[in-house]
Amino acid sequence: MAQQDGNQGLTHVDEVGAARMVDVSEKRTSARTAIATGIVRTTEEVVGLLRSDELPKGDALATARIAGIMAAKRTPDLVPLCHPIALSGVQVALETGDAEVRITATVRTTDRTGVEMEALTAVTGAGLALHDMIKAVDPAAVLDGVRVERKEGGKTGTWVRDTEEEGQ
Amino acid sequence: MAQQDGNQGLTHVDEVGAARMVDVSEKRTSARTAIATGIVRTTEEVVGLLRSDELPKGDALATARIAGIMAAKRTPDLVPLCHPIALSGVQVALETGDAEVRITATVRTTDRTGVEMEALTAVTGAGLALHDMIKAVDPAAVLDGVRVERKEGGKTGTWVRDTEEEGQ
Amino acid sequence: MAQQDGNQGLTHVDEVGAARMVDVSEKRTSARTAIATGIVRTTEEVVGLLRSDELPKGDALATARIAGIMAAKRTPDLVPLCHPIALSGVQVALETGDAEVRITATVRTTDRTGVEMEALTAVTGAGLALHDMIKAVDPAAVLDGVRVERKEGGKTGTWVRDTEEEGQ
Amino acid sequence: MAQQDGNQGLTHVDEVGAARMVDVSEKRTSARTAIATGIVRTTEEVVGLLRSDELPKGDALATARIAGIMAAKRTPDLVPLCHPIALSGVQVALETGDAEVRITATVRTTDRTGVEMEALTAVTGAGLALHDMIKAVDPAAVLDGVRVERKEGGKTGTWVRDTEEEGQ
Amino acid sequence: MAQQDGNQGLTHVDEVGAARMVDVSEKRTSARTAIATGIVRTTEEVVGLLRSDELPKGDALATARIAGIMAAKRTPDLVPLCHPIALSGVQVALETGDAEVRITATVRTTDRTGVEMEALTAVTGAGLALHDMIKAVDPAAVLDGVRVERKEGGKTGTWVRDTEEEGQ
Amino acid sequence: MAQQDGNQGLTHVDEVGAARMVDVSEKRTSARTAIATGIVRTTEEVVGLLRSDELPKGDALATARIAGIMAAKRTPDLVPLCHPIALSGVQVALETGDAEVRITATVRTTDRTGVEMEALTAVTGAGLALHDMIKAVDPAAVLDGVRVERKEGGKTGTWVRDTEEEGQ
Repeated sequence: MAQQDGNQGLTHVDEVGAARMVDVSEKRTSARTAIATGIVRTTEEVVGLLRSDELPKGDALATARIAGIMAAKRTPDLVPLCHPIALSGVQVALETGDAEVRITATVRTTDRTGVEMEALTAVTGAGLALHDMIKAVDPAAVLDGVRVERKEGGKTGTWVRDTEEEGQ
Repeated sequence: MAQQDGNQGLTHVDEVGAARMVDVSEKRTSARTAIATGIVRTTEEVVGLLRSDELPKGDALATARIAGIMAAKRTPDLVPLCHPIALSGVQVALETGDAEVRITATVRTTDRTGVEMEALTAVTGAGLALHDMIKAVDPAAVLDGVRVERKEGGKTGTWVRDTEEEGQ
Repeated sequence: MAQQDGNQGLTHVDEVGAARMVDVSEKRTSARTAIATGIVRTTEEVVGLLRSDELPKGDALATARIAGIMAAKRTPDLVPLCHPIALSGVQVALETGDAEVRITATVRTTDRTGVEMEALTAVTGAGLALHDMIKAVDPAAVLDGVRVERKEGGKTGTWVRDTEEEGQ
Repeated sequence: MAQQDGNQGLTHVDEVGAARMVDVSEKRTSARTAIATGIVRTTEEVVGLLRSDELPKGDALATARIAGIMAAKRTPDLVPLCHPIALSGVQVALETGDAEVRITATVRTTDRTGVEMEALTAVTGAGLALHDMIKAVDPAAVLDGVRVERKEGGKTGTWVRDTEEEGQ
Repeated sequence: MAQQDGNQGLTHVDEVGAARMVDVSEKRTSARTAIATGIVRTTEEVVGLLRSDELPKGDALATARIAGIMAAKRTPDLVPLCHPIALSGVQVALETGDAEVRITATVRTTDRTGVEMEALTAVTGAGLALHDMIKAVDPAAVLDGVRVERKEGGKTGTWVRDTEEEGQ
Repeated sequence: MAQQDGNQGLTHVDEVGAARMVDVSEKRTSARTAIATGIVRTTEEVVGLLRSDELPKGDALATARIAGIMAAKRTPDLVPLCHPIALSGVQVALETGDAEVRITATVRTTDRTGVEMEALTAVTGAGLALHDMIKAVDPAAVLDGVRVERKEGGKTGTWVRDTEEEGQ
């Protein structure tokens, strides 16, 4: 795994443990990008239904993409200690496999904090929307592996997941 | 896995594929419960920090619990085709393991639809909040296995996950 | 036009003119439906683009449908004196004409107030989303004729727009 | 009509038609203004009630003005692919005619995108609030002609509606 | 002060101290009302400005009334462990004194929990809006005495503040 | 009290009294801080419960801190004429006294407007959350003295409350 700044504690709680929204006013505004992914594991039957829905007016995958984009914008409402920041771009891609749907969210900003939380929130938003649409056919679907793949920009620079460590 | 109603298609899109919020006005108001779980996989170091935070004013785990409860209330804002319903109770439990935190959300309602989406949203809300707080120490943390464990009430009755199928 | 209850003033302001959310606790819970429509007037070129988007992954019309459904759920946040109510179903249909898109929203509830505001809000939500997507090609697009067509249920019963009065 | 940039497709969907929030990180921050208008067509009786409400504590028109201002702030929540941006000023003016209320919204920002969607959303917010307050007296009211009149700032510069084309 | 149910602990945390949204599914739906008050203490000059604003189009007090009503609807978004409930009526009254504005909010529901939090939230919403409007003239304004005056309905029945205890 | 700019009227209403979100596009982006305080007056018994809750997993005070931080982010949704701005840091401190809890909120931004409304909203958010958690034991609790203590930055510079004027 790429080296991270030598932070040894939880920055979101102060010295006595009280939660806070960390002061970033000293941080520089800069272009930042984060990519996060996740997988909805379901059945071949469901993937077949989603694919056959890839016809005119087939809204199932579109609904999940839009849910992901809108969720990214709701990040500061959902994640208590997250800063509200300006997002300059959000993209949510869905790729159907044999019995799963892989979600990739790319979020960009030009602000004082990174956008990995926004990317992760976009992935869970798309994943929840997919789950909602398929739950009548597959109530056992699982949202797995929600994680940051890459982040760029800011003081800590580029971080890329070391994929050899993980099984998935 | 318990049998589900013989629904053969995606109920959230109509016959031509257009997304809709399904009409549930004919459904009966009844007590319903759903339990969902998920796991934040991180490092032993992070779990140590979270545990040592279990001291006076240690807000990290509290922040995640509250994020989960509040996320459950935001479900209709996040999941496009979800009905806005009255929630009569939400509980989010966090259990720290060696290098992970297990999240369990229990949601209750007395309304016309089930609350599995609210329980799943609570799990992802708590998971995202945890990720946010630990990301400076462990940017590689993963939210895994977000899934329904059990749902009770409504026409389809009790559904319990068949745990033998899954590895986790 | 169908007769309305003999209300002679603005019910949303009290006798001295102060705004209020009218007390409906004495009203009976009953099944209610409202249908509202509106038209986005644009160019033939834009309608051609929207139609050619009716291909696999063509999300433009889906985005508008979902925006309409989600807007219906935000009605009490947007309309200051509206009651927050449970919606039991929302459908948003889009029909492309020569140089316009006709929006029809159908909203159902089983609650104490009618849902015409939710249906109108769904129409404007879909109309705004369409406007957003086509504005680079046609900045002059107009959302016209946002109005209730029909409402059913509640004490005042069925109201149907007298279409002979209007030109449109 | 003023010339628009030569965009030939829908910028909000990518080459395969998937919805996205367009990346504007390369755009320059600059002062931008947009003016949008709309008309609530109702009856002389209703306009009389609204005018007589223009007395001490007459909140009806104030409610609509405030609904419009607050709606402008909710634009990114309502319009799925809209960027969340900082608004530096919002004004909503209402002008009563014989049997209609004309709404004019002026929105300003110093950010990376134009604010025509915020201005249009303010107009619909005010229009919906008016509709809500008058619907008991005039359920047939219509929100008409919601459209951008003028936008200034940004790369495309000033755009002014060519009023000779429209009837209104 | 009227006797309260013999609750000896904090009901919103469980036996080990974890926050939860208490399960109210066993509670009966019934008509409930709560009245809360508060006072914005400011200067005679400000009260003069607010009163002179009680002219045609004087929106200052209207803005505060509407802010209070809308805040009541946002209670479950603001108060983490509050149940989302249906509100059947909200009224916010403002009374100007020599150098203060007294706020009274009355909230009604027909649901499973009381509405004192909604009434208190309405008072703070109106108080914050007043503060915002007068802060350029009186940055030292104070919102004082935000408290429940009376609640009716539900199992515990009517509770009325014992006014002799307080000074105010 | 420190001198304020010589504003003689209510800036949030225009010359005819209509509410508006004041245009701040000419204002300079600069670092700004505001500190606000308030007090929840309750009983010794309640303070005892809150303190004994300062044990492992004692979420009561954490819930109030987080409610305050999240409320600060919701300020533009609650205060009708407030500008949506970027917050660069929020801290909410709670101090238990004999029979009260003192709330102090510190909010920072680097934007075009001051953040006193955000600090006041954080105080009321924490106060409402406390009230919610203690209301079963002390329904008579009062939120008192919500006020700005200090603001720094912007054109008007530093303003500090003259504490000799107030009793509290």
